[in-house]
Amino acid sequence: MTTVLKLGGSVVTEKDRDETVDGPELDRAASAVAAARSGGGGDGSGGTGDAVDDLVIVHGGGSFGHPNAAGWGVTTEEGTRDADGVLAIHGAMTTLNKFVLRRLRDEGVPAVPVHPLSAAHRDADADLTLPTGQVRTLLDEGFVPVLHGDVIAHAGEGVTVLSGDEIVAELAGQLDAERVGVCSTVPGVLDADDEDSVDEASVIAEISSFDDVADVLGGSDATDVSGGMAGKVRELLALDVPASIFDLDALSAFLAGERPGTTIRGDEK
Amino acid sequence: MTTVLKLGGSVVTEKDRDETVDGPELDRAASAVAAARSGGGGDGSGGTGDAVDDLVIVHGGGSFGHPNAAGWGVTTEEGTRDADGVLAIHGAMTTLNKFVLRRLRDEGVPAVPVHPLSAAHRDADADLTLPTGQVRTLLDEGFVPVLHGDVIAHAGEGVTVLSGDEIVAELAGQLDAERVGVCSTVPGVLDADDEDSVDEASVIAEISSFDDVADVLGGSDATDVSGGMAGKVRELLALDVPASIFDLDALSAFLAGERPGTTIRGDEK
Repeated sequence: MTTVLKLGGSVVTEKDRDETVDGPELDRAASAVAAARSGGGGDGSGGTGDAVDDLVIVHGGGSFGHPNAAGWGVTTEEGTRDADGVLAIHGAMTTLNKFVLRRLRDEGVPAVPVHPLSAAHRDADADLTLPTGQVRTLLDEGFVPVLHGDVIAHAGEGVTVLSGDEIVAELAGQLDAERVGVCSTVPGVLDADDEDSVDEASVIAEISSFDDVADVLGGSDATDVSGGMAGKVRELLALDVPASIFDLDALSAFLAGERPGTTIRGDEK
Repeated sequence: MTTVLKLGGSVVTEKDRDETVDGPELDRAASAVAAARSGGGGDGSGGTGDAVDDLVIVHGGGSFGHPNAAGWGVTTEEGTRDADGVLAIHGAMTTLNKFVLRRLRDEGVPAVPVHPLSAAHRDADADLTLPTGQVRTLLDEGFVPVLHGDVIAHAGEGVTVLSGDEIVAELAGQLDAERVGVCSTVPGVLDADDEDSVDEASVIAEISSFDDVADVLGGSDATDVSGGMAGKVRELLALDVPASIFDLDALSAFLAGERPGTTIRGDEK
């Protein structure tokens, strides 16, 4: 069974300090992954005892990717042909990737890097090609591939941003993933305007169409370049399998087979 | 016109000192590439004035890749499933890649990295899949993609070595390269046993079959895991276009459209 797990950029980095890892949170995530892979239920928050076998991890950019991309004026649609810009944005993301790999390795997870810039591109219609034969083979050989938001070649634009959320959606489809989880800083999609007053009751249990949550997420016209909740929900609704959005407290439960937080289930499922 | 240029590992590193870049030689190579791209003939050793447009660079491992691969017992056929081994070998190669990129950027070449571990894999029959849509798009957008020998996922083996020479052959075919050059520490394939007595007359001008040089290169049974001259000649004979083997003194001439050193021209060309 293949699981695709997104670790949000704001989970593994300190959002308000440029290029700063959130060490304790990253350690918690790595520890939960390690426990799940060795067959336990993680930190005691649940679990059936089944080991997670084929696991792909995708992490966002947080305070590494976003400030660099913004500084170079690069989005998912607007690109740069300046090699310094490519190396600055990509370099920040590979630095973060090294931190994530290091913590996972420290916990005994056989994590290896897969950098999207080296593999993917978009054509002139902005259609994404992300080959996954390397990811499938790494999984089959027992590794945990770790991808990340990145810049990639884009015909007519130079390089543009490929967000972690888009990678999750693409991998889930191509790898026939049976489980898809997005670990965020919030416990799910919230049915409230004020995130300061979050409690269990604020988490929407299930979303089956964007209209269900358009008012909460700012309407279907709302745009977010990368990483916003509206974009996540849209990407996940398009998947062939249900997906979960949850926070770090619920990561072990998700890896143990539960569906914590919000379940995103498109109409056809 | 697409050109694939291999910079030998022993050209850009000090072969006898582990993980040491040969700075002056790397600078010479970077300078020749920059001059050729800006339309000149490089360092005065020749040139027609035509700028080299689409250029892909592949570098070998030299004192970065080989000691690490040997230390982990990893070859093109024998693999490892130890993530520490993967990260050690791949990490050494990406470190060397950063040095190569830095020198090219210092000369104004818009070089960007493409790491084979992130893109390629071998199946259980050891057949290589190296997607090249990302390389083609980077070229079309004006970048100079820089690949390198690496470890890649290999079904049934964990990861194994993908040599720079194999990458050159694969790229040349897939990108329909019109020019292929291998910059080595020797001025070509030598018609002599003693490399200490190299002179112009020792360089074989043209090779059209392996039998021509089997005695010089140690016979067709000779094996070399990666980087040896016999392996290079074999890979290059299989290409659809002629290829050149030359040294750093002749790099500018090659980039200017000449055929210095030894020309490898398979029977069908």
